[in-house]
Amino acid sequence: MTLKVYLCGEIHTDWREQIITGSKAAGLDIKFSSAVTIHEASDAAGDCLGQEQNGFWRDHKSAKINAIRTKTLIEQCDLAVIRFGEQYKQWNAAFDAGYCAALNKPYITLHSEALIHPLKEVDGSAQAWATTPEQVVEILAYLLSDQLS
Amino acid sequence: MTLKVYLCGEIHTDWREQIITGSKAAGLDIKFSSAVTIHEASDAAGDCLGQEQNGFWRDHKSAKINAIRTKTLIEQCDLAVIRFGEQYKQWNAAFDAGYCAALNKPYITLHSEALIHPLKEVDGSAQAWATTPEQVVEILAYLLSDQLS
Amino acid sequence: MTLKVYLCGEIHTDWREQIITGSKAAGLDIKFSSAVTIHEASDAAGDCLGQEQNGFWRDHKSAKINAIRTKTLIEQCDLAVIRFGEQYKQWNAAFDAGYCAALNKPYITLHSEALIHPLKEVDGSAQAWATTPEQVVEILAYLLSDQLS
Amino acid sequence: MTLKVYLCGEIHTDWREQIITGSKAAGLDIKFSSAVTIHEASDAAGDCLGQEQNGFWRDHKSAKINAIRTKTLIEQCDLAVIRFGEQYKQWNAAFDAGYCAALNKPYITLHSEALIHPLKEVDGSAQAWATTPEQVVEILAYLLSDQLS
Amino acid sequence: MTLKVYLCGEIHTDWREQIITGSKAAGLDIKFSSAVTIHEASDAAGDCLGQEQNGFWRDHKSAKINAIRTKTLIEQCDLAVIRFGEQYKQWNAAFDAGYCAALNKPYITLHSEALIHPLKEVDGSAQAWATTPEQVVEILAYLLSDQLS
Amino acid sequence: MTLKVYLCGEIHTDWREQIITGSKAAGLDIKFSSAVTIHEASDAAGDCLGQEQNGFWRDHKSAKINAIRTKTLIEQCDLAVIRFGEQYKQWNAAFDAGYCAALNKPYITLHSEALIHPLKEVDGSAQAWATTPEQVVEILAYLLSDQLS
Amino acid sequence: MTLKVYLCGEIHTDWREQIITGSKAAGLDIKFSSAVTIHEASDAAGDCLGQEQNGFWRDHKSAKINAIRTKTLIEQCDLAVIRFGEQYKQWNAAFDAGYCAALNKPYITLHSEALIHPLKEVDGSAQAWATTPEQVVEILAYLLSDQLS
Amino acid sequence: MTLKVYLCGEIHTDWREQIITGSKAAGLDIKFSSAVTIHEASDAAGDCLGQEQNGFWRDHKSAKINAIRTKTLIEQCDLAVIRFGEQYKQWNAAFDAGYCAALNKPYITLHSEALIHPLKEVDGSAQAWATTPEQVVEILAYLLSDQLS
Repeated sequence: MTLKVYLCGEIHTDWREQIITGSKAAGLDIKFSSAVTIHEASDAAGDCLGQEQNGFWRDHKSAKINAIRTKTLIEQCDLAVIRFGEQYKQWNAAFDAGYCAALNKPYITLHSEALIHPLKEVDGSAQAWATTPEQVVEILAYLLSDQLS
Repeated sequence: MTLKVYLCGEIHTDWREQIITGSKAAGLDIKFSSAVTIHEASDAAGDCLGQEQNGFWRDHKSAKINAIRTKTLIEQCDLAVIRFGEQYKQWNAAFDAGYCAALNKPYITLHSEALIHPLKEVDGSAQAWATTPEQVVEILAYLLSDQLS
Repeated sequence: MTLKVYLCGEIHTDWREQIITGSKAAGLDIKFSSAVTIHEASDAAGDCLGQEQNGFWRDHKSAKINAIRTKTLIEQCDLAVIRFGEQYKQWNAAFDAGYCAALNKPYITLHSEALIHPLKEVDGSAQAWATTPEQVVEILAYLLSDQLS
Repeated sequence: MTLKVYLCGEIHTDWREQIITGSKAAGLDIKFSSAVTIHEASDAAGDCLGQEQNGFWRDHKSAKINAIRTKTLIEQCDLAVIRFGEQYKQWNAAFDAGYCAALNKPYITLHSEALIHPLKEVDGSAQAWATTPEQVVEILAYLLSDQLS
Repeated sequence: MTLKVYLCGEIHTDWREQIITGSKAAGLDIKFSSAVTIHEASDAAGDCLGQEQNGFWRDHKSAKINAIRTKTLIEQCDLAVIRFGEQYKQWNAAFDAGYCAALNKPYITLHSEALIHPLKEVDGSAQAWATTPEQVVEILAYLLSDQLS
Repeated sequence: MTLKVYLCGEIHTDWREQIITGSKAAGLDIKFSSAVTIHEASDAAGDCLGQEQNGFWRDHKSAKINAIRTKTLIEQCDLAVIRFGEQYKQWNAAFDAGYCAALNKPYITLHSEALIHPLKEVDGSAQAWATTPEQVVEILAYLLSDQLS
Repeated sequence: MTLKVYLCGEIHTDWREQIITGSKAAGLDIKFSSAVTIHEASDAAGDCLGQEQNGFWRDHKSAKINAIRTKTLIEQCDLAVIRFGEQYKQWNAAFDAGYCAALNKPYITLHSEALIHPLKEVDGSAQAWATTPEQVVEILAYLLSDQLS
Repeated sequence: MTLKVYLCGEIHTDWREQIITGSKAAGLDIKFSSAVTIHEASDAAGDCLGQEQNGFWRDHKSAKINAIRTKTLIEQCDLAVIRFGEQYKQWNAAFDAGYCAALNKPYITLHSEALIHPLKEVDGSAQAWATTPEQVVEILAYLLSDQLS
C-alpha cells in the first residue's frame, strides 16, 4: 500500500518539509504532492499567455492554470492534509477542503487552536484535526502500519 | 423554468434581502435558500445533543448539523451566490465554493475589488464575479429572460 | 423546503411515532418514510414467490424485496435517522448507514450511551448522534428554521 | 489479472491468515488488504491528537482516522470478504458491506449458519455467502482460473 | 410514496395489462411506463428520417430512437419489471436488465421455470424472480404497504 | 410522461418555433427550453458586471453567464435537439453535443446533407439525424405515443 | 497505449482465440480478458458453497460468483467485444452489453447478418458491428495505429 | 508526477509535433496521446466492416470507431489541449471540449485571436487560452515544476 498524500495550504512555513522529512525518517511509503508553492511563480502562472492591465484577469488566468494541477492532484490523492496558518485569508485551502468533501476524499486539517471557531465547517468534514506536523506523521505511520503480508 | 438559488456566505450585511427583494420586484421565478443565518442559533445547533466542555467539540457538533442543511441545499440548487465581506475568515464560504466546483454546480461570487487577489482560486472556478447585489439580480433576470412559450 | 427523512432501524419501540408526532406538533414540513416495519410481513416478503425449504433462501428472497424499498427511499431522502436499540444485531441498520455514507447522504444516529463503543465507525460517518427522539425533533426543527421568505 | 481483495470484519480468529495462506499455497495472484487489526492500536488511533475525557470523542477521533484507511481500501479493491463471528456487534463490518453495496463493489460474506437470519440484508446484497475460509479460497481460485493467454 | 415502475420485455402477451389492472384493483399508487409496444410502429420508428435500402441501417435508426425513450424511462423509474417469454431472442430485455444493473436500479424478472438456466446471469442481478403477473402485483402491493402516516 | 426537450444551436432561422408549433398542434406534452436566443443580449450577458477593453474578456464573461443557463437546462432535459445551419462556426452547438454525450444524455441533430462529413463525430454520438423540423416533431410524437393508461 | 479488451459471449467457437492470435500476429499491445469460458466450471462456480436441491439456487449462486469476475473486468476494460452465435439464448451477452452502455463503455458486436433484427437494440448502442474476428482485429489494429512518439 | 496530455483538433499543421518536441527539449515527464491524425485513415476507419453506398453511413461507421479511441483517451488524460485552426468546421474539436467540460476534465484551447468570438463558449469552460504551441509548452513546464522531493 502506497499512500498518495496531497499537501495543501500555507506556504510561509516549512510544514510540508517537516511532514516529508518525518515520513522518510519513519520509512513510510508515501508519494507527496502539492500545488506550486513558490508564491511569485504561482501568481505569474498565466503571464506567459499575455500581459493583462486588469489585476482581476491576471489573477484569473494564473488561478485557472494552477487549478489544472491542483484538481488533478486532489482527484488522484488518497488523502489531503490541509494547513491553515494564523495569517492571510487562505481561501484556496478552504476551497480545496470543500472540493475534497464533495468528492468524498478524506482530508486532515492542520492548524492551531486559535483557528478552531472560524474553521468549524472545514473541520466538520475532515477526518482529523492536527496541530503539529509531527501528529500528521504519526497518523500517516499508523495508516500504513499492520499490513497483511 | 424556476431557478433554485442558494445564497451563501457573509451574514453581517443585508445582501440576501437585497437580492431577494430585487428579484421579487423584477418578477423573477426563483426559490432562494440559505444556511441558518442567525449566528447564535447556528453556533448552538448542536447544543441540544448535550453540553461540551471542549470548544472544539461544541463547534464540531454544530458544524455537522449545519452541514446537513447546507449540503442538501447546495446539491438541490441550480446556482449558488457566494458572498465574501471585508471582515472575518469566512472559510465556510470558500469551502462551499469548492464543494460546488467539485459537483460542477455553477456559482457566482459577490465581493469587493479589495478581495480579488486572495479570492483568485475561488473566482477562478466561478461563473461570474459581481460586486453588488444589483448586479446579481441583473444576472438572474437575464438567466430567466427570453423563455420559449 | 420540505425535508425527506428516512427512519431506519429498531422496530421494537415507538421511536418512529415519537419523532413523527413531535414533528407534527412542531409544524415541521417533513415527509417521513421507512422500511416495512411489521416484522412478520417483512420476513415473509418473498413468500408469495414460492415456498423455500432452506431458511437461507427464504430470508434471501425477502431481504432482496425489502431492499427495493429501502434503497429507493435512502436514495430519495435528504436525511436518514438510524436507530440502534440495546438488543438484537440490527446489522441492517449498520448496513444502511454504510450505504448512506458511500452516497454522501447525511444521517443521524439514535442510540444510548451504552452503544458508543461498538457503534464508533457508524457514528464516525454520521452528522450527529442523538440519544432521544426529542433531540432528533429538535434538530429537525432547527434544520427547517430561519427560511428565506 | 491481479485481484485486490479487502478482508473486513472479525479480528478475534485467524480467518485472514487462513485465506492468505491458502491463496499463496494455491499460487493465486492476489493483493490482500485490511483495516488495522490490532484492537488496541485501532482504538487508540486518534490518541496522538490529544487526550479526551469523553469516551465518545476518543472513539470518534479513532474511528475517523481508521476510516481514512478503510474507505480508501474499499474503493480500491475488486472484491471484499466480510467476516462476521458469533460474538460482538461488529457493526463496522455491516457498515462496510453497505458501503460496498452503494458503490456496486462486490463482496462475499463469511459466517456460520447461526447468523443467517440477522445477516439477511447483508447477505441479500452479497455475491456469495461462505462458511469457511477454505470456501473463500476456492472461490478466489475459481475467479482467477482460465485466463486468456 | 408513488412508485415508478418500468415494464420491459415481451410484447406478445398481456402481462403488462394484467399487472396494471391488478395494481389498480389493489389501489396502488404506481406510475407505469414502457417502451412503445406496438411492434410495427417500433420497427418503423426511424422511417420518417428517410428510407434505407440496407436492413441493418433501418433497424439501427429505429433502435436508437426507441433508446431515447427506454433509457429515459429506465433512469427515471424506481423499479423495472423485465419479462421474458418462451419465444424469441428478446435480447433487448436482457440488455435493459444489464443497463439497470450498472445503474444500481432494482429490477424483477418475470419468466417461467423453463428459462431459469439461460437467464441465470440476468436473475443473478435481479431483486426477485416471479413467474406470474399476480406475483408481481403482490410484490408491488407489499412495497407500498405499511407507510408512515 | 412529460418530455423535457432542450433546443440548441442556430439562432438565425425559425426552426425552434416550427418544432414548438408543430408539437403543440400534435398535442404533445413537452416542455421546451433553450439558451437565450437574442444574439445581442447573449453577447452582452456579462456587461452588467463592468465594461471590458479586451474583447476576449467581454466574451468570456458573457459566455460563462450563458453557461449557467445552458448547463442547467442540458442536465435537466430528457432530450436535446441540436441544430446546425449552413453558416457560421456554431462551435457552441458542437460543444453542447459533446457535453450531452459525456453525460449519456440523448440528442438528435438537425442539419442538411451538406454538413454530413464535418458533423460525423457529432452525429456519431447522436440518437438520430433529422433534416427538417417536421421530422423532429414526428420523432417527438412517436416518443410520446402508446403510453400505458 | 495498452488497450484492455474484454471478450464476451459465445463459448462454442474459437472466436476468442482467433482475435488473440490475430492481434499477436499484428504485434498489438492488448490485454485480453474474459469470463471463465469452461461451461461446466462456470455452471459449477458456486457448488463449493454447498449443494442445492433447487436448480434455480444452484444457478443463482454460480451466476453471482461469475458476476464478480465479469463486472470487474467490464469496469476495467477500455473496450468490450460481444459475440453472439446463431444458437442459444446468450442473454448474458446482451446483459453485458447493457451494462457497458450504462457505463458509457464502448463495445463492438460480433455476429452474422442473420441476427441483425433481434440484436438491433444491442447494436444500436454499440460502436461497431463486425461479422468476423478478422474485422475485429483490423479495428483493434487501427485503434492502436499512428501513435505519438 | 507524470502528466497525461491529450492533443485534440486541427490536423493540418504541425502543432502537435511542436508541443511534443518542445516538451522533450524541456525534459518534461509527459505522455502525449491523440486521435488517429492521418485524415484518410480516419475517414476509412470503418471500411473494413463493409462498403457503404450512402456517405452518411460510411462516415457514421468511421466516426464511431474513432470515438472508441478518443473517448478512452479523453477519460484517461489529465489535461487536453484543443486546437482550432483558421479553416474548416472542426466540430469534433468543439465536441471533445464539451465532453471534457462535462467530465470536469481540464483543457486548454489553442487558437488565434481571429477565433475569439466564435469560440467564446469553448473558451469559457477552458482553463487557459494559448495562441502558440510555445505557450502550451511553457504552461506544461510550469505545471510540472516545483515538485516535492
